Amino acid sequence: MDDWTTLPLERSGRRPLYQQIKEAVAAAIEAGSLPPLTRLPPTRALAHQLGVDRVTVVTAYNELAAEGYISAHVGRGSFVLDRATAGREGLASPPPSLRAPADWTAHNLNREMMRLARRPDIISFAPGMPATDLLPVDAYRLALNTVLRRDGPEVLQYGLIEGYPPLLAAIATELAGMGMRVEPDQLLITSGTEQALALVLRTLLHPGDTVLIEQPTYALVLDVLAGTGVVIQPVPCDENGVIPEALPDLIARCRPRLLYLTPTFQNPTGACMPLARRHHLLALAAEHDLFLLEDDVYAHLWLDAPPPPSLRALDPSDHVIYTNGYSKCLLPGARIGYLLAPARLHGLLAAAHQTLDISASELHQRALETYLGEGRFASHLTRLRGAYRQRRQAMLEALAEEMPAGATWTRPGGGLYCWLQLPVDGPSATTVYVHALDTGVAFAPGRLSFPLAAMGTGGSHHARLNFTLHPPTVTAAGIHRLARAWRQAAGET
Amino acid sequence: MDDWTTLPLERSGRRPLYQQIKEAVAAAIEAGSLPPLTRLPPTRALAHQLGVDRVTVVTAYNELAAEGYISAHVGRGSFVLDRATAGREGLASPPPSLRAPADWTAHNLNREMMRLARRPDIISFAPGMPATDLLPVDAYRLALNTVLRRDGPEVLQYGLIEGYPPLLAAIATELAGMGMRVEPDQLLITSGTEQALALVLRTLLHPGDTVLIEQPTYALVLDVLAGTGVVIQPVPCDENGVIPEALPDLIARCRPRLLYLTPTFQNPTGACMPLARRHHLLALAAEHDLFLLEDDVYAHLWLDAPPPPSLRALDPSDHVIYTNGYSKCLLPGARIGYLLAPARLHGLLAAAHQTLDISASELHQRALETYLGEGRFASHLTRLRGAYRQRRQAMLEALAEEMPAGATWTRPGGGLYCWLQLPVDGPSATTVYVHALDTGVAFAPGRLSFPLAAMGTGGSHHARLNFTLHPPTVTAAGIHRLARAWRQAAGET
Repeated sequence: MDDWTTLPLERSGRRPLYQQIKEAVAAAIEAGSLPPLTRLPPTRALAHQLGVDRVTVVTAYNELAAEGYISAHVGRGSFVLDRATAGREGLASPPPSLRAPADWTAHNLNREMMRLARRPDIISFAPGMPATDLLPVDAYRLALNTVLRRDGPEVLQYGLIEGYPPLLAAIATELAGMGMRVEPDQLLITSGTEQALALVLRTLLHPGDTVLIEQPTYALVLDVLAGTGVVIQPVPCDENGVIPEALPDLIARCRPRLLYLTPTFQNPTGACMPLARRHHLLALAAEHDLFLLEDDVYAHLWLDAPPPPSLRALDPSDHVIYTNGYSKCLLPGARIGYLLAPARLHGLLAAAHQTLDISASELHQRALETYLGEGRFASHLTRLRGAYRQRRQAMLEALAEEMPAGATWTRPGGGLYCWLQLPVDGPSATTVYVHALDTGVAFAPGRLSFPLAAMGTGGSHHARLNFTLHPPTVTAAGIHRLARAWRQAAGET
Repeated sequence: MDDWTTLPLERSGRRPLYQQIKEAVAAAIEAGSLPPLTRLPPTRALAHQLGVDRVTVVTAYNELAAEGYISAHVGRGSFVLDRATAGREGLASPPPSLRAPADWTAHNLNREMMRLARRPDIISFAPGMPATDLLPVDAYRLALNTVLRRDGPEVLQYGLIEGYPPLLAAIATELAGMGMRVEPDQLLITSGTEQALALVLRTLLHPGDTVLIEQPTYALVLDVLAGTGVVIQPVPCDENGVIPEALPDLIARCRPRLLYLTPTFQNPTGACMPLARRHHLLALAAEHDLFLLEDDVYAHLWLDAPPPPSLRALDPSDHVIYTNGYSKCLLPGARIGYLLAPARLHGLLAAAHQTLDISASELHQRALETYLGEGRFASHLTRLRGAYRQRRQAMLEALAEEMPAGATWTRPGGGLYCWLQLPVDGPSATTVYVHALDTGVAFAPGRLSFPLAAMGTGGSHHARLNFTLHPPTVTAAGIHRLARAWRQAAGET
């Protein structure tokens, strides 16, 4: 704890107490004695220590947050932000609407954590990416060169906003194999699935609308929604995903526009919704005219048995907005995803699409089409599944070996993630994270997958571990370091 | 004027007056007697006509806007929305927030025109792209293969959200050559310049804010702003661009957050702002704390003499948000642009960036960095300028030869566009466009470059002609067809 926590306050009433506190903290941050990611004391504790009202401390923290010094959220704790990414250089503070919504500070924290996790001495299980060493670079290089020689300079030109027509046709064929009957002109190519999600959420949702989400959910969706004025309403979930029985009440109460969900190998829990529940959910969507935004990016990554058909494949009433892409199983860096919307939304989304981007990379689209046309995708997935099974096994064995009593974790049937719950009477995942960076390992703290309002408890002891990233021996070493970090955080070293 | 403007209001107090007005307008729209894009009477005039308070009419319009019937913005007029892009196909009409903003109907028109212009029998001067036949596909193929062999599978992985660090360094070097001193970490790579513009406009502007634009301006920026609730305020321009003397008044009246402009070889006029005016503009920005969003994508495409330094290069007070990229002069399909923001905005924009996209294509970024590092860019630009000078000459000669009396056009010193004004007493550009598709030529109708409120007159007789797309003989043939289309439209055939 730093000396500003014992600062002598001037109680003459000439300078507000909150302002004195604020200035002391700001000075400590400026001076570097409170470095980025330092957790400030809880407001209640600091108020007690300084002998002031808690509201005084809350006000000071709010001011610091508004000025970009700290991230402050009720129930989450307050962290010092990296000033390099905030205001500086003695300029006047920006006008109110030039400030980030509060929720983005969580994002900054996430970005900071991810940056730290890139240190070469760290074994990171944090990122949501497939294993680099298994990306099919040789086959894709051939496809690129085929296209460059065949098509000449037009592969470097802008593409059509809807996407490269032969790729649309190839995707329609792929979807047919997954039980979805689709015409190519129903598809929109997007710059990765994330752009498809941003497009749908920003186009269909307006301030004051309610969106339903799984809890926990994909962290970036929370960021897309941050600052939009959209109300985020979590839906109760169990190990099979969204609980349909909980929906009618929520729908009546919140009148939501849509439900965002990943029914197959959910991020972060890995849950896969059984067929009967899918039908139940679709019946509710039709009955209540609720759109389901189905994120299916992990569908190809089954390890034990193929998952049930997608919601879109089962949809009797055209209520599913379906998105998928090639980032989680083939080519993250090509930025190719796609969107398949109900007929009544297609025109609206197609028009909005061009306000985000002119087109996806034409070269990547053509090379991907060539790659898919050569029939290489299926054998790539088979190879990937074999390797991922080994890596999953390595992580599960290491967790069983290393984790403290009281820890539990999922055994994912597919996707990329193991969802670890640390002992609830032990240190929080965020605390463990700080120690983990010292022991040389990183993970995605669970609270990033929970919306702000629920963060007081949600995810506080959870960690998302990407089990696919490293060969078995490296995974084992990483989990060993994680256990050490936990013991350090628990004061058991 | 329609009969609903004289409707007899029931003044018993049982039904609110605003609701009666709202229902009358809605009924007229539903019945088709107020077709899409009809401009409703100003609130003040209608209030006078109906003998009610203006606030009553404003409330009615607001309700209509909230329900998707009209677009209503203070100072911009209210337009009937195109119901065809909303509910149809016998499905229940979508909930209010699932309707497209009015302004997107202009965009749909644009997209339709562009699609028609792709017919192989049409010589199109419409798109805002560089000439396909001059894209350096061989050199770029070498760069791609260098990177694929050198870096292996990680070129297919997600990149850093900020961009590939060596590319950031290469861009900083390029900017230094343009008189801008920049550290690589001040830059953000975006998926093309359009994403940079969308990022800035969507992040910094909130509903009710005012943005200043050139008139005419880049059509896609109008689309990005459509439906955001941001008030678009055109600034008077002459052949040298924005007129600084007009700004103080506008700033006092509208309190704008920023001014979007292309000072160098503007789209669509080709105007290039002289040095003295740049200094004047920058002094005003500093004085009034106005951000200047400088779109510099045509800077490299000078044909007669290099343009003055960018606003960013001259900026004494850190008020310029600078964006540029490689789409207009090198690699449209690689989707690589960048953003250079004032220090006090960088963190905010960096955080918002990830809510639009995870990263630009890592492969393209690395290949571009290799290409730039080989020093090929300068010689490519020299070659491009030589060809573009010939193509400009061909178009100017053909216009002089073919255009009717009363037509005028610019002689662009750079960029891609010739800005043609058809005789104001003849057929409109939109009318000519319909005939042009028959005679086998296409252009971008001028009104797409004007904000909706100004569309009544602005650009009605203008056409944007991209002079770079075709070899001289094809350009000559295309302008010949254009003249024929004009004569047909004028009934002179």
